[in-house]
Amino acid sequence: MNTPQNNCSIAIQVLPMKVADYLPDIDRVIYYLQDRFPQARVTPFETVIEGEYEECMDALHQCALIAAQNSSDDIIVNAKIAYGQILSSEEKTSKFEK
Amino acid sequence: MNTPQNNCSIAIQVLPMKVADYLPDIDRVIYYLQDRFPQARVTPFETVIEGEYEECMDALHQCALIAAQNSSDDIIVNAKIAYGQILSSEEKTSKFEK
Amino acid sequence: MNTPQNNCSIAIQVLPMKVADYLPDIDRVIYYLQDRFPQARVTPFETVIEGEYEECMDALHQCALIAAQNSSDDIIVNAKIAYGQILSSEEKTSKFEK
Amino acid sequence: MNTPQNNCSIAIQVLPMKVADYLPDIDRVIYYLQDRFPQARVTPFETVIEGEYEECMDALHQCALIAAQNSSDDIIVNAKIAYGQILSSEEKTSKFEK
Repeated sequence: MNTPQNNCSIAIQVLPMKVADYLPDIDRVIYYLQDRFPQARVTPFETVIEGEYEECMDALHQCALIAAQNSSDDIIVNAKIAYGQILSSEEKTSKFEK
Repeated sequence: MNTPQNNCSIAIQVLPMKVADYLPDIDRVIYYLQDRFPQARVTPFETVIEGEYEECMDALHQCALIAAQNSSDDIIVNAKIAYGQILSSEEKTSKFEK
Repeated sequence: MNTPQNNCSIAIQVLPMKVADYLPDIDRVIYYLQDRFPQARVTPFETVIEGEYEECMDALHQCALIAAQNSSDDIIVNAKIAYGQILSSEEKTSKFEK
Repeated sequence: MNTPQNNCSIAIQVLPMKVADYLPDIDRVIYYLQDRFPQARVTPFETVIEGEYEECMDALHQCALIAAQNSSDDIIVNAKIAYGQILSSEEKTSKFEK
């Protein structure tokens, strides 16, 4: 469970361009994020991590490098970085669960 | 469940600016999307809808208008529109579920 | 010149996936936007249009369709929609010009 | 002028939430980016920097911290990170100039 004192949450979308099959490159990044942030939420367009700012930004730093390890040499990473007195993912989504 | 023939998926983030409490405006948009797309996925940074292109784009069209109904008169809506031979949300996320 | 009464501005990024050369599909969309909005600003990651909400959203609606006319059948369009009492592009950028 | 060997370009949008006037916080970040990257392009929704990956990511790292120095304690930074064999900003936009 996310503790309320986290000061950062980042939503990360990785888009390997110019490759016929981009899924392996995306999957490698998601597995990396899930391994480092066991509470990461994998959503249809992005993966959301939570934690301290330095730790989250360091993980974001790795994403393009990991995505580029194999086939694509033209990577776009779209990130939404929330910083400060922010709500946790749990606080943001729980009331909408059915 | 999402049928594979959907040709569109849109991830929508609504950000009411210049207001001390932006949650009511965001919630109103999410409830609208959930009502219109019962399979909508509410994720920490965005809500994801799936369907036919015309229907999804019409829903996106409503979001800023609904967000602006009350307090904020300065709305930013960030949208990721996927169109064509695309994967369903289920296909994109199921393999990462734990 | 942008008149202050515009109530909408949209920044549009088109990403044709799974194609070896995505530039022709992107260019076709930019030329469409420039033709329809002569004041459109073409920036490195997105093209910015300004006008009335209905007109801007209608142009956004066309972008994925135009991008998919040729090679790619998997298009991602990222849009930032600003709506309401918003600043014009000119007001936002002129003070930073050197 | 951008040399073709840059392996990174980042488009950065800073959104200070919950404040009546978000412009001072945004301006402070843009002035920081312009000072560090004299060729930075200030566009209506984002500022685009170019350079080596480590240098650009370090600048991105500072943005939320700089935005939060004064009024807002709830910052959203949206970033598009392009990495690899990428086009320069000049290559991407020059053909559309009128």
